[in-house]
Amino acid sequence: MSTKQGTLFGVGTGPGDPLLVTRRAWSLIESAAVVAYPAPDHGESFARSIVADAIRPDAVEIAMVVPMRTGRAPAQETYDKAAADIGGHLADGRDVVLLCEGDPLFYGSFMYLMVRLRDWFDVQIVPGVNSLSACAAAQVHPLVARSDRLTILPGPLDDDTLATNVASAEAVAIMKVGRHLPRIRALLTRLGLLDCALYTSHASLPKQKALALADAPEDAPYFSMILVYKGDDPWIS
Amino acid sequence: MSTKQGTLFGVGTGPGDPLLVTRRAWSLIESAAVVAYPAPDHGESFARSIVADAIRPDAVEIAMVVPMRTGRAPAQETYDKAAADIGGHLADGRDVVLLCEGDPLFYGSFMYLMVRLRDWFDVQIVPGVNSLSACAAAQVHPLVARSDRLTILPGPLDDDTLATNVASAEAVAIMKVGRHLPRIRALLTRLGLLDCALYTSHASLPKQKALALADAPEDAPYFSMILVYKGDDPWIS
Repeated sequence: MSTKQGTLFGVGTGPGDPLLVTRRAWSLIESAAVVAYPAPDHGESFARSIVADAIRPDAVEIAMVVPMRTGRAPAQETYDKAAADIGGHLADGRDVVLLCEGDPLFYGSFMYLMVRLRDWFDVQIVPGVNSLSACAAAQVHPLVARSDRLTILPGPLDDDTLATNVASAEAVAIMKVGRHLPRIRALLTRLGLLDCALYTSHASLPKQKALALADAPEDAPYFSMILVYKGDDPWIS
Repeated sequence: MSTKQGTLFGVGTGPGDPLLVTRRAWSLIESAAVVAYPAPDHGESFARSIVADAIRPDAVEIAMVVPMRTGRAPAQETYDKAAADIGGHLADGRDVVLLCEGDPLFYGSFMYLMVRLRDWFDVQIVPGVNSLSACAAAQVHPLVARSDRLTILPGPLDDDTLATNVASAEAVAIMKVGRHLPRIRALLTRLGLLDCALYTSHASLPKQKALALADAPEDAPYFSMILVYKGDDPWIS
């Protein structure tokens, strides 16, 4: 006797405002019998908090506790364990909705689950509003226009790599700024770009900050981004 | 006597599937008395078609007919006229919802309206699922992971510029491919990247194509994208 297997849904929950969840993501979560999400060592899962109102009280919940900033081995174990749990539900014919803050395929941890499961199970992605679009919206400032090049750089990259890549694009987004803010701000100042750099943290949440980079706090959170626009005046059509 | 002015909402409608519209965008459109959108010379507005089911039958509709591929002067006139129409509603205290396919601030025409109106009226952005996230979802393939750099390049750029920028990032998205497909495919082949290049058109729509670039048709539509991933194996955590 064969049971029809379940589908793994990688579902983007968007940047933080529950109203910036897509209609498809919301209804999938409302009907999900099994919901999984990344969670910190202590405290609440951000992805879960965004869609908490949609999760059924009787849903089975799988929290993947990923130790932050401790090398890869503990994360491997977490993903192996979560993949086994999720795979069990899928094999028994139950769909699993895996919540991902922002978009599942944009710098997320979803892909580590996906690789462990996709050879055996159907995987579908529900894209979400990513942090690029959320930060530009918070600033009411274009990300990129016309024939501009846009380069997205993780903040932990070294100064030389950042400078080289910043030089070869009209628009730049620097992600995961966090503790690298003072160094990156100094770099952009040396490059003469401080005046066209914007700082955004917690886009779309009540605690959102949308500032000029010059006015940004030294202690930036992990979920912060710097946008630089040095192309032609984007305002002229 | 002063009237409270209306707000201009730049609302992303996402890549095409009406279910990939955010909850906030959908409810704003459902309650909008005035809805504006770009439209082609002939045929239906793509942005409007995505959310047609949410538009009130009694809504005032403003179609901005932007002549394609004909230089800037006619577009200027179109935006000037639309800004005057929209500004009239805002001045009379009516909110205006301006529909933008994808995300309003990611290579959209919204910004040309924004510049004409934002000094006089309140402007708010509702970000949408952009085409980057939609194409990665269609391919069930990560856009970018860990410390990867992602560069987004308009397809009309010349070969030298494309090659230089492709060389300096682990992940690349080439937008607005259209008639440039044969040239870009030849370039990526010369760079030894054909095997890691994906082609997507009409992401999230019934007519979506998600193929290896090697299998892509010669006559790509404007709404098509090439994704290249040449970083470390993204599947290993």
